[in-house]
Amino acid sequence: MADEECAPSTAALVLIGNEILSGRTQDTNGPYLAQRLGALGILLREIRVVPDVESDIIAAVLALRARFTYVFTTGGIGPTHDDITAASIAAAFDVPVVRHPEAVRRLRAHYGEDLTEARLKMAEVPEGASLIDNPVSAAPGFRIANVFVLAGVPKIMQAMVESVAPDLTGGPPILSRAVSAAAREGEIAGPLAAIQTRWPAVDLGSYPWAQGGLVGTTLVARGTDPAVLEAVLTDLCAMFDDLGLDATILDGVR
Amino acid sequence: MADEECAPSTAALVLIGNEILSGRTQDTNGPYLAQRLGALGILLREIRVVPDVESDIIAAVLALRARFTYVFTTGGIGPTHDDITAASIAAAFDVPVVRHPEAVRRLRAHYGEDLTEARLKMAEVPEGASLIDNPVSAAPGFRIANVFVLAGVPKIMQAMVESVAPDLTGGPPILSRAVSAAAREGEIAGPLAAIQTRWPAVDLGSYPWAQGGLVGTTLVARGTDPAVLEAVLTDLCAMFDDLGLDATILDGVR
Repeated sequence: MADEECAPSTAALVLIGNEILSGRTQDTNGPYLAQRLGALGILLREIRVVPDVESDIIAAVLALRARFTYVFTTGGIGPTHDDITAASIAAAFDVPVVRHPEAVRRLRAHYGEDLTEARLKMAEVPEGASLIDNPVSAAPGFRIANVFVLAGVPKIMQAMVESVAPDLTGGPPILSRAVSAAAREGEIAGPLAAIQTRWPAVDLGSYPWAQGGLVGTTLVARGTDPAVLEAVLTDLCAMFDDLGLDATILDGVR
Repeated sequence: MADEECAPSTAALVLIGNEILSGRTQDTNGPYLAQRLGALGILLREIRVVPDVESDIIAAVLALRARFTYVFTTGGIGPTHDDITAASIAAAFDVPVVRHPEAVRRLRAHYGEDLTEARLKMAEVPEGASLIDNPVSAAPGFRIANVFVLAGVPKIMQAMVESVAPDLTGGPPILSRAVSAAAREGEIAGPLAAIQTRWPAVDLGSYPWAQGGLVGTTLVARGTDPAVLEAVLTDLCAMFDDLGLDATILDGVR
């Protein structure tokens, strides 16, 4: 585990679901969590998409929770046969699945007489897990050690992230500045590398674009110090100016 | 490696790029490759998103290429400092990076006098790699053993997939049928599990939806035998009928 005083908190996300691997569903939980964690000063360092297969879920969670401060999972906590996340996480931690009394109470309050046996499955969590509130549809997520198990439905997943955000140890928010110009990457690679070397604490990314017959490159600088990012932006604009190119500073780019 | 006579070919995808982990870019290469491989009868079994960090790229590629028939990577093969895929794959295979004469020829034909030293970086591949055609912008991808290294720009990535498709050993296309009804998952979980048990060769997924105040569930059956999928669809419609619910068969769902 990283020294909290020196190194930023890190995170990984495991997306559980055949529907993403088949191309049926375009995942939006990854981008959402990336941005939300960035605002909390936590670096999302890996995303894995795995199928609804217990051994694959176990392997991903164990590998990632050893490497990163936090692991989040989304998907597979509903009432149907393909919802195997709770059982898989329990197996990963080598503990039994138990029916959580408070989760049963919440489901009963939500469903009343319609609380079927199938729905009671949503009260099952690994022994020792604590519940994560679901203000949308009652069925809770859960946390065990550094693993946070969230719903796959984006609206519910997002509410659960807010439920756990106060429990996460982050750092200064990760900020970004971006600038774009009608330059091909091959024309700026040299001076750009020099700017990256000058500012090692900043992550400097180069992204080519093509639109309406024009081609260009967007450069994105990410880091936690606003003054340093402003200095990098100044260097990037000077680089474009040296090449005789107009540069546009982009606001609201992550 | 799986017995080609019995087990379907499998694949994993490694998305290389800080821009996906920051939430700046919504990946579309994953869904595209999932669908294209499905049509070729190759199962996409895992996707990993890793940052522009050599050790992370090496670890992902080595782990996945041992488990699956094919590994595809996208991103990081341009001319800038953050394009480290070729060097990382070479390190994973413990071979040097070499400047490929045919790649140099293609870049020279494309760029002419503008073939800068930075652009020549795009001709560098691991020793022993073969080139993957790029009909869009010349700079090739490459293949080494069961690892296919593709561009990150979707249009180029897609063209490269077509370039390599004839070299992939697939199987019967993976087909799907889908049906939707205004049923909550908790109402159908029992009979649905029974249908899954009856048809073990089919992957039967359950996906809740909410739209305009209505809630419901879409059921997706995936497999390679059209007659079996038709039989599963009949069972699913009968299940909804037993519950007194109208079901809608969805066309064009993956």
